[in-house]
Amino acid sequence: MTDAPPPVLVVIDRAAAGGPPLGPGETGFRVVDPAAPTIHVTDLGVTRGDGIFEGLGVSHGSIQALEPHLARLARSAALLDLPELDLDVIRAACLESARLHEPAPLLLQKLVVTRGVEGGDGSPTAWVRTELMPDHDRERREGIRVVSLDRGYRHDVAQTSPWLLQGAKTLSYAVNKSVLREAARRGADDVLFVSSDGYALEGPSASLVARVDGRYLTPRTDQGILEGTTQADAFEVLRSLGHDVAEELLPMDVVRRADALWLLSSGRLIAPVSALDDVPVAIDAELTRQLGDALVDRRA
Amino acid sequence: MTDAPPPVLVVIDRAAAGGPPLGPGETGFRVVDPAAPTIHVTDLGVTRGDGIFEGLGVSHGSIQALEPHLARLARSAALLDLPELDLDVIRAACLESARLHEPAPLLLQKLVVTRGVEGGDGSPTAWVRTELMPDHDRERREGIRVVSLDRGYRHDVAQTSPWLLQGAKTLSYAVNKSVLREAARRGADDVLFVSSDGYALEGPSASLVARVDGRYLTPRTDQGILEGTTQADAFEVLRSLGHDVAEELLPMDVVRRADALWLLSSGRLIAPVSALDDVPVAIDAELTRQLGDALVDRRA
Repeated sequence: MTDAPPPVLVVIDRAAAGGPPLGPGETGFRVVDPAAPTIHVTDLGVTRGDGIFEGLGVSHGSIQALEPHLARLARSAALLDLPELDLDVIRAACLESARLHEPAPLLLQKLVVTRGVEGGDGSPTAWVRTELMPDHDRERREGIRVVSLDRGYRHDVAQTSPWLLQGAKTLSYAVNKSVLREAARRGADDVLFVSSDGYALEGPSASLVARVDGRYLTPRTDQGILEGTTQADAFEVLRSLGHDVAEELLPMDVVRRADALWLLSSGRLIAPVSALDDVPVAIDAELTRQLGDALVDRRA
Repeated sequence: MTDAPPPVLVVIDRAAAGGPPLGPGETGFRVVDPAAPTIHVTDLGVTRGDGIFEGLGVSHGSIQALEPHLARLARSAALLDLPELDLDVIRAACLESARLHEPAPLLLQKLVVTRGVEGGDGSPTAWVRTELMPDHDRERREGIRVVSLDRGYRHDVAQTSPWLLQGAKTLSYAVNKSVLREAARRGADDVLFVSSDGYALEGPSASLVARVDGRYLTPRTDQGILEGTTQADAFEVLRSLGHDVAEELLPMDVVRRADALWLLSSGRLIAPVSALDDVPVAIDAELTRQLGDALVDRRA
């Protein structure tokens, strides 16, 4: 076994728009030692989970769905009243971070923007870190066991109570980790969040796709859930294959009669659900492989 | 105006219980440069808000309600399935951090424990930072304008859905900051969270006390809210003055007919509510001063 190549860490000093123009040769970001600490204990990202992030896949050097990820980052920033972001600087930092990593078929990038240091000048703290993609082959092939867990909010909470930040991809993800521990206690690998009034929502880091009566359905994103960048691309593939796709309100009783279920995300890409709440779900291995190959092959 | 004295930052390397015994002269913590970054970008505290904290007041060198704060930290750790904490090491770090700060009547400590670095050895990252207490005199005297905002969860969510971590003081506080921005948009200073079924809960960083029909009431903590260390001490004072105090379910219509309301917390200690949802609330200046003085005068 060889050592993994070192991650690449790029700190983005000019993540906010509206500063003075960059001078000749200035990029607004810098490559730093990934092994050294770079965050202050007074950063609101760590003291309050007050920031946003994106996870991006890199396939053969090309960042997948980079523009949709940047657009979602900007939407999250707006939901949190963060400063407007300079997506050109952030995009360039992502590209440089990917370029500097030792070549590998698949890399994973984490892009983070926090509200910055408490009592500071209001500049966000931002960075992008690139590392080898963990191996998800087994989950893609054998599927994952999923349990449904109450998210506690009604499906319309993003409309009634926007201050709850549902639909923003924030750093306040303690619950998203907690539900995975609850899943493990129940012998499962992942979670499907359900609204308090019974609608299927999303996983803690993935979008749901359900095949029901021959149609491919994903929960409507006006329910305080994230627009799935990988789900969107999978729907493009399904459309090109002649399938009917739709975003809908999905009551759990509809999900429970699906003849196939998947969780889609930027890292693992696609994982078929082999059981939902201990009830076996059939795996469409051929379609899963087809979608997985198409998702791996995406170029920016 | 003189420069503020520098904060004191103590990193707690041995926050988890169960390690090898400390050697002679070993403390399990170390004083570090407060101006230097100490957190890695892969720390789960910053990437996932996956950790817990306490805010502690220090009055004339004595940490207020230290043991209740440590007990609450341990409860939060248990709710998050964090390693069991070594409260002796953490206590000593807090005391040393307070001792090393330049003397001042009032200091503020922030104690943080995260799940540690992703892919690391499982050790928590922990620190305690001491700085001058911000001045809260005006709020204590003139009161604060409060708006009630839906927290989105039913009052019994901590029982039905413990994976939502309600009642743990986690680093995932983006919503607690978001609601303060919503309050500011409404011309207010602070927030009272309300359950989706209409019960008063707590502020984003404070406990509610309401005087109703001559009794002093605070919401029951089995509703996924924090046990208020300052509220508990204020109730002791009220009891010693012969008043009737109780923890109850408080429907908002009961709160709205209170003849006095307060928010209590470790930093600001006590702030009378001067308006709730734009409806003026009378301020009992004499009792507020009496409680405030008693809270300032607490010694460990």
